[in-house]
Amino acid sequence: MKNRIERIFEKEDEDIDAIVILNSTKPHVDLTFYYITGLIQGEFEGSGVIAYPDGKAEIMTSRLEEESAKKADMPVHTISKTDEREEWLNEKLDDLNKIGVNSSELTYSAYKKIRGSTDAEIVDVSDSIAETRNIKDEEEIERLSEACRIASKVAEEMTDFIKPGLKEYQVAAEISYRMKKLGATADAFDTISSSGPNSAEPHYTSGNRVIQEGDFIVLDFGALYKRYRSDITRTYIIGEASDKQRRMYETVLKAQEAALDMIKPGVEGSKIHEVAQEVIDSTEFEGYFTHGLGHSIGLAIHDGSGLSPNVDVVLQPGMVYTVEPGIYIPEFGGVRIEDDIVVTEKGCDILTDANKDLTVLG
Amino acid sequence: MKNRIERIFEKEDEDIDAIVILNSTKPHVDLTFYYITGLIQGEFEGSGVIAYPDGKAEIMTSRLEEESAKKADMPVHTISKTDEREEWLNEKLDDLNKIGVNSSELTYSAYKKIRGSTDAEIVDVSDSIAETRNIKDEEEIERLSEACRIASKVAEEMTDFIKPGLKEYQVAAEISYRMKKLGATADAFDTISSSGPNSAEPHYTSGNRVIQEGDFIVLDFGALYKRYRSDITRTYIIGEASDKQRRMYETVLKAQEAALDMIKPGVEGSKIHEVAQEVIDSTEFEGYFTHGLGHSIGLAIHDGSGLSPNVDVVLQPGMVYTVEPGIYIPEFGGVRIEDDIVVTEKGCDILTDANKDLTVLG
Repeated sequence: MKNRIERIFEKEDEDIDAIVILNSTKPHVDLTFYYITGLIQGEFEGSGVIAYPDGKAEIMTSRLEEESAKKADMPVHTISKTDEREEWLNEKLDDLNKIGVNSSELTYSAYKKIRGSTDAEIVDVSDSIAETRNIKDEEEIERLSEACRIASKVAEEMTDFIKPGLKEYQVAAEISYRMKKLGATADAFDTISSSGPNSAEPHYTSGNRVIQEGDFIVLDFGALYKRYRSDITRTYIIGEASDKQRRMYETVLKAQEAALDMIKPGVEGSKIHEVAQEVIDSTEFEGYFTHGLGHSIGLAIHDGSGLSPNVDVVLQPGMVYTVEPGIYIPEFGGVRIEDDIVVTEKGCDILTDANKDLTVLG
Repeated sequence: MKNRIERIFEKEDEDIDAIVILNSTKPHVDLTFYYITGLIQGEFEGSGVIAYPDGKAEIMTSRLEEESAKKADMPVHTISKTDEREEWLNEKLDDLNKIGVNSSELTYSAYKKIRGSTDAEIVDVSDSIAETRNIKDEEEIERLSEACRIASKVAEEMTDFIKPGLKEYQVAAEISYRMKKLGATADAFDTISSSGPNSAEPHYTSGNRVIQEGDFIVLDFGALYKRYRSDITRTYIIGEASDKQRRMYETVLKAQEAALDMIKPGVEGSKIHEVAQEVIDSTEFEGYFTHGLGHSIGLAIHDGSGLSPNVDVVLQPGMVYTVEPGIYIPEFGGVRIEDDIVVTEKGCDILTDANKDLTVLG
């Protein structure tokens, strides 16, 4: 298989001499830097990488990051002052005719530095980068699988931990702790631990609310493992489940199953969203599924693609998406069930295997 | 006191009609969005804010974030499709003559969207934004103080927790857990828990190494609290301290004290670095202090300024910096002591009050 760099260049019709990735200060580090270099550890603020059509590349970074950078299988140029960064750009880009940049993760300020260092034509190769990154290779799927395994294990453990009287943030803290003990570097994103009426807000994170009998509790979290991110949601009911709660849960589960059944190469992502939407909209809960069905995951938690009405993508083997229908009833509460899948030759594999039968806790 | 928006405009000589902040996908969200809106919760991918010289502003965000956005004291325009984002930009920017953008946190792709929506001249106001953000107001200092309080308390608690036999990552997980229990939303950055020879790598995070007698252990971590970030480092010795370890520790502490003594309005940031550097370079550890003395903290962990040779800044009341000298001896180990300070009218207040006497554990 061609390497990641070659696959990006292959998508470009134009004759591009080099692709320049230039990182700014955190959080504005281009994740493509990690994609191209394969590096796992290091901060790499202000660093960069230049990649060539033959699949080779060179890293520029500060002395402080030199040891980390050397773990990549490519030459490393170290600098000790900021102006040496521009010297490097000048030297590398001066003679080139056409340069590609990743506009979706390059700051405008870094763009201006590139622009100032060469007369070459600058073209935006962000679509080619996004499309290449959206089909994960073997190493990426291994890392994503491990990130999913960690999150799934913790999801199952939490059913013993959650009890009425605990506060939302205590559950969030416990999830993070257990993921780290299983090998996660960090949370993949801010954990959502929302209970009762808070569970009706899809983007609420967690707070001081005390978990009570009759609550839904929505746990939405993931592990960062070797720079790759998982994303799982499980919803539990505390104490005793009302009929309405059961109907909500079963509807979401059916919507998810209908979506999962459809996933295979050649299917449009937006159609999968539609199927889940239809399951929910054919019930009393019509109109309460208020977001897209899923998003791609990888180095970023929203990795550039989605299963939703506004995204134009046809599934191919190696794509990894979340599948997360939900029903949100203001003041009452919400249910979401989310798994991560990888598209295979014939369908999909579910990477998050935590139990999702309706579960009443406490 | 003028509001944050007015203070940014005041720094610009030019007659700017509006400043546009446009967020991309995570992690490429401009932290200035939070600075201007004051919002604490919400994801705000793809959202934006337009600010005017009179101190008013308007938010544009997706329906999903509407409830979160309404917590800001300004109008909220919601969109449900991506093309409505461009319509909003067109409508708001069409008649203007001069627009400011924050090049250091705006992606090149978002810049192109702004560029395409108006014939106005676009100027880079990132320096004015950075200078304004570098002087924290009362609310910001309160949040930073609380973030520092959480980190300091956990630093002191860890002296009871750390024992030979524990692995580095177990210590990192415990730190994160305890900070969350004290009210942190998340780690301010990936915790460094480095032991033995690993402590000689300033940017190592944590791994599987077992903590042993004779080790240095460097703990460098911080709390995210209401979007503000603290950053503390404490170094402990395990079992028994050798003479060389004691000399290293005392030298770093002296360098930090010399730096702290100098901090007051009117002093150049680079001079403070120099003083710490001179303390270290006048000992047997000459040449082993290999990074800048400190960086500003705030919404970002490296918030745009620094106390280091390459940064041109004169201290003013309200600036908040880390002060973190270190000595790193390859193969042997490293010592770093870091506190966060706010510049006051006459000197500085130290926001991280954890004990820093040489401490031997286990």
